[in-house]
Amino acid sequence: MDERLKGQVGFLLECDKMKNILRQTLTINDRRRENDAEHSWHFALTVLVLSEYASEEVDINRVIKMALVHDLVEIYAGDTYAYDAENNKSKAERENAAADRLFSMLPRGQGTEIRSLWEEFDAEQTPDACFAAAIDRLQPMINNYYTDGESWKKHGVESGMVYKRMEPIRRASDKLWQFAAGMVEDAVKKGWLIDSSAQ
Amino acid sequence: MDERLKGQVGFLLECDKMKNILRQTLTINDRRRENDAEHSWHFALTVLVLSEYASEEVDINRVIKMALVHDLVEIYAGDTYAYDAENNKSKAERENAAADRLFSMLPRGQGTEIRSLWEEFDAEQTPDACFAAAIDRLQPMINNYYTDGESWKKHGVESGMVYKRMEPIRRASDKLWQFAAGMVEDAVKKGWLIDSSAQ
Repeated sequence: MDERLKGQVGFLLECDKMKNILRQTLTINDRRRENDAEHSWHFALTVLVLSEYASEEVDINRVIKMALVHDLVEIYAGDTYAYDAENNKSKAERENAAADRLFSMLPRGQGTEIRSLWEEFDAEQTPDACFAAAIDRLQPMINNYYTDGESWKKHGVESGMVYKRMEPIRRASDKLWQFAAGMVEDAVKKGWLIDSSAQ
Repeated sequence: MDERLKGQVGFLLECDKMKNILRQTLTINDRRRENDAEHSWHFALTVLVLSEYASEEVDINRVIKMALVHDLVEIYAGDTYAYDAENNKSKAERENAAADRLFSMLPRGQGTEIRSLWEEFDAEQTPDACFAAAIDRLQPMINNYYTDGESWKKHGVESGMVYKRMEPIRRASDKLWQFAAGMVEDAVKKGWLIDSSAQ
């Protein structure tokens, strides 16, 4: 096997570790913690199905590619729970070091290209990245809602924290924002989320 | 929520079941059976990384979309092990019925579009579908090889059966065929696969 293909296969083998990185979100049917590989697939599929609701014009193919690679750095940096303030302080530094290590396994040009996609996603500045960020928030929100808010209850999450986390959805799509906000309001009514406005 | 979005969200919720459909292939690190969601993601990522080796010109964006949806029918039809001759007889019928049920959850035009992608993949006639089929075979083959052929040994698989299964790789890419054939030869040497030529 030549060096180029060897590097690419090595990268793909390393990426298998995504199947072992557990998130706080539960799967709907057996209510176990879903992993990064499952989330990335469901996120990409959600882009395919809901892209018509993007407020700005997006390149769905680029958004899907972002979905496939957006969490790869967690292979070394681990999953940082959205509502863990302490761990989020060191997130950027940990993830940059992880990117250096992981993407250098690929041939230089290809590694740079995939890293750029991840950096664009992470910066949330382009329409493609904004829509990707929105769906990255929406997929776990749907799962949290349809597992009776089990993960929110476990971590004592407040509605205000979820609204803040959902900000990319508000920017990227009126329709999906309306849908997501409806879930939050209902989750507060059902006692799955603590009502921030009542504090 | 309007009817259109309601149908789409219902479809995405149903697709969560992909996380519970177990395949015979093992994950590399904890050697448990991987599920369809994990496989679909790894397949799509492999397309992203290895598309340069396609013998014919392919539209990588379409191939990635095929990867995302190619196993959805297994939500109702179940995973049919490649080397289970009996179950493969009823595979097409079971999967067509599953497609009728699953894709009709989506708005008509969208359901038809995604079903077409799956049908094109399944027919293996276009360059995009041929390359998709090749990577659909290569991803589990890599995992089988890097888990010491555990799944092959368990099922008493012969090298000839694997070569037959790998046929789409031969058609789609000289380089990847060479790589895959090398793994088979080595697996035979190591006793992970039964040597068909010695029978």
